[in-house]
Amino acid sequence: MSTKIDQDRVLIFDTTLRDGEQSPGATMTHAEKLEIAGMLDEMGVDIIEAGFPIASEGDFEAVRDIARQTKNATICGLARANFKDIDRCWEAVRHAKSPRIHTFIGTSPLHRAIPNLDMDQMAERIHETVTHARNLCDNVQWSPMDATRTEHDYLCRVVEIAIKAGATTINIPDTVGYTYPFESANLIRMLKERVPGADTVIFATHCHNDLGMATANALAAVEAGARQIECTINGLGERAGNTALEEVVMALKVRNDILPYRTGVDTTKIMNISRRVATVSGFPVQYNKAIVGKNAFAHESGIHQDGMLKNAETFEIMRPADIGLKETNLVMGKHSGRAALRAKLKELGFDLADNQLNDVFVRFKALADRKKEVFEDDLVALMRDQVSGEAHDRIQVKFLRVICGTEAPQSADLVLSVDGVDHRVTAQGDGPVDATFNAVKAVFPHTANLQLYQVHAVTEGTDAQATVSVRMEEEGRIVTGQAADTDTVVASAKAYVNALNRLLVRRQKSDPDADVKSVSYRDAGE
Amino acid sequence: MSTKIDQDRVLIFDTTLRDGEQSPGATMTHAEKLEIAGMLDEMGVDIIEAGFPIASEGDFEAVRDIARQTKNATICGLARANFKDIDRCWEAVRHAKSPRIHTFIGTSPLHRAIPNLDMDQMAERIHETVTHARNLCDNVQWSPMDATRTEHDYLCRVVEIAIKAGATTINIPDTVGYTYPFESANLIRMLKERVPGADTVIFATHCHNDLGMATANALAAVEAGARQIECTINGLGERAGNTALEEVVMALKVRNDILPYRTGVDTTKIMNISRRVATVSGFPVQYNKAIVGKNAFAHESGIHQDGMLKNAETFEIMRPADIGLKETNLVMGKHSGRAALRAKLKELGFDLADNQLNDVFVRFKALADRKKEVFEDDLVALMRDQVSGEAHDRIQVKFLRVICGTEAPQSADLVLSVDGVDHRVTAQGDGPVDATFNAVKAVFPHTANLQLYQVHAVTEGTDAQATVSVRMEEEGRIVTGQAADTDTVVASAKAYVNALNRLLVRRQKSDPDADVKSVSYRDAGE
Repeated sequence: MSTKIDQDRVLIFDTTLRDGEQSPGATMTHAEKLEIAGMLDEMGVDIIEAGFPIASEGDFEAVRDIARQTKNATICGLARANFKDIDRCWEAVRHAKSPRIHTFIGTSPLHRAIPNLDMDQMAERIHETVTHARNLCDNVQWSPMDATRTEHDYLCRVVEIAIKAGATTINIPDTVGYTYPFESANLIRMLKERVPGADTVIFATHCHNDLGMATANALAAVEAGARQIECTINGLGERAGNTALEEVVMALKVRNDILPYRTGVDTTKIMNISRRVATVSGFPVQYNKAIVGKNAFAHESGIHQDGMLKNAETFEIMRPADIGLKETNLVMGKHSGRAALRAKLKELGFDLADNQLNDVFVRFKALADRKKEVFEDDLVALMRDQVSGEAHDRIQVKFLRVICGTEAPQSADLVLSVDGVDHRVTAQGDGPVDATFNAVKAVFPHTANLQLYQVHAVTEGTDAQATVSVRMEEEGRIVTGQAADTDTVVASAKAYVNALNRLLVRRQKSDPDADVKSVSYRDAGE
Repeated sequence: MSTKIDQDRVLIFDTTLRDGEQSPGATMTHAEKLEIAGMLDEMGVDIIEAGFPIASEGDFEAVRDIARQTKNATICGLARANFKDIDRCWEAVRHAKSPRIHTFIGTSPLHRAIPNLDMDQMAERIHETVTHARNLCDNVQWSPMDATRTEHDYLCRVVEIAIKAGATTINIPDTVGYTYPFESANLIRMLKERVPGADTVIFATHCHNDLGMATANALAAVEAGARQIECTINGLGERAGNTALEEVVMALKVRNDILPYRTGVDTTKIMNISRRVATVSGFPVQYNKAIVGKNAFAHESGIHQDGMLKNAETFEIMRPADIGLKETNLVMGKHSGRAALRAKLKELGFDLADNQLNDVFVRFKALADRKKEVFEDDLVALMRDQVSGEAHDRIQVKFLRVICGTEAPQSADLVLSVDGVDHRVTAQGDGPVDATFNAVKAVFPHTANLQLYQVHAVTEGTDAQATVSVRMEEEGRIVTGQAADTDTVVASAKAYVNALNRLLVRRQKSDPDADVKSVSYRDAGE
């Protein structure tokens, strides 16, 4: 890897599947991670950080399988500053055409205190671990966590050590989202000026949005010489999230006059992957989110509308088509055939085998009978529902009839199949959803706690499909279930059951102690 | 007004009620606008832009009534560059203890082309209109719309004209969200250096977030000498919205080491007003929104959790209490009394008269019977429902019974009171919500179009209240209805009826031609 090839090219490092998936409740299934990785690769992301292999068996398998399937992008895994983490990371990423090990340690005074290492001990640890990683893989990224609160002299010292030990990319994380743009730029500039060997590596910027400045901080770092931006789709991530991929990529495109840098991202794929990440993570995008919000290209006031009619440029600096947002998305009706459905689904990013298409076509016809117009978003919901309501699920909704309204009690009559055996139960509750959930609990008792219940209409109109998201927590495991139906109550029942099925998978795959939550600084010394 | 009093003090100009309310679908009722204005005043905002008086009768009344009620803040109204707009604005704001007229015109080449004025003609118009405004009011703000795309020489020329004509605040809007921080700073710096009289006025920065950089751009302008930030709660506003008040205010607080400026905002009021604006605008805040998102202070990964336990500062640069977010918000149960309820509501910002308290107490008891635990958020939902389901509404839900589930058709049996007369009807539909809405339509036919249907649980647990938002559009009028109930279907019916009632008010108050949407550049010359 050389920094000399193209000085204007900025690498896009997407960490939706690692730092993004770390958000409370954003846990994705194995299939969802593979799908998102496929979309990231197709849109031209340079490096995909696919997970934290030591964190759990599930994380390991996701990184390994993404490494195997990916055609173009470099696949990166995260590892703390110890041999066990790094070895495990290598086991997962080595299957990639282009693998990378990313190892890190917290270098600020607050973070040095946690593993209780002094400056010299930490420097030695960095030397050992980066050397170890480089002996396994010729593409090694090293990060001094909380770099923006690390003493400058010490930061220069440890970056130099990492470079000498073989790191090819040095990432400077603003772990707490504390930095201001000129500081972000000054830090990169200082490192490039002061650290011997700095010209042989690529500097990366990794920002968090706690003060709303992640995008400006990332771009300021690029101006100062960073050539890799770490980011996530929709700015997903812990707390206020990471730098949003769509914002930095579009800013570099729209303001290329003053920011003369290129990325390899096909921006017309942005809208599709944004919607998909919102769905699988259960993190909706707010209407006024930059670039990908529902309103990002909408105008209300008469003044602006009048201006728009006269000249779109008056109020728009981007075109909807730049991010793959189509003017109209009406697509199909009840007379649409199988070939048309397959073609449309392919356009939406779903490439189906014949048997899968048959299933979807039956469901599409049923939907088209109930809805006058089927939109792209309806098809996406249908596909998601197809994936989430899988035939091999242990619990399935067979029948539901709910009576509700202003006069209590509301009741639900439910047939639930558990491991192939049908159970019928009637339950009451405060409202149709509570009654339905109580019925499910009566058949399948559990102690998981409902953290979030959310419904939104997929498209406009009173006959729209409703998508329901249900987030549950059991002993620290958080899962999100989803389902779509024109009947909100049926969608709620299916989403709840979907969450339970995911919980069963999580229970099987990992005992809680092997789960992400047990990863801690104390292990760093092992 | 002088710029000399305190060079470190940055004025906060909130335009939630003007630029924020301009977002498609964010229309607020008169009562909601007054309530938000009261909260803004109480939190220490310096200037409240309360509306655009010429835009509609409703806008005029809101600005006038906010001017009358406000204790501390300056009340500002917007006016285009014509005498009629400015006179109407003055009629509304003159009731304030401290009134301000804000007049603007688009000065960039693209915007000059719309009213078809050449540079000299526009300069003359600016001179006339600012003089006219200053003759009415000694506090005049002038904005060259699309300033960031206006030729620098021309911008200096028109700013000088506005200052000479008596403007006391010069606002520099980045209307299309196009600017990059160093440009934002350079523009203010240039104006302060080149324009005669620049030292006698306050410069303001008005940014939009289209590229995700509104906060950084606003702060860069402050560093360059701007002393007023224009912003909205939650960054509400057209497209990707305006600079978020909570982000700039908290950035100035957290990074006071490098940004040595003060605002007058009591940051502990941020969370309350953020929730309230999200509710009344129908614009939910995404979980990973900086400062006010549900996750802004939450931590998932084991590493971060371990760090948090050891030292909160390791990963948190702000404390939840700084923005008024309490650790736990469990408050009341079925045994809580009237006095406790009143005290709690007062703490949440609702100050009730005795008769209002009686109504709310009855509803609180009914809720406490159905829900094991009543949280602060439940009380807020109850209060909102109280306001939205007002006794004088023309249409009211009297009874609802819905049968739904996996076997179609779903049906709704509804009693709706219209102008005091009860009507009973049974209707079918695709799902309980569609059936219910069809029943409402059978009793009260209308052509309004459902644009958005959204449900979220107010608190955790399966017995949570559901809040339903329904956005409808009829001949360009957009209204949002909301309601809360433990029964989602009942909440849906009430929210739909609430939206219809709002539509009836809009129909009465203004013929469509007098509505905001008809305001256009063509009028600028009148």
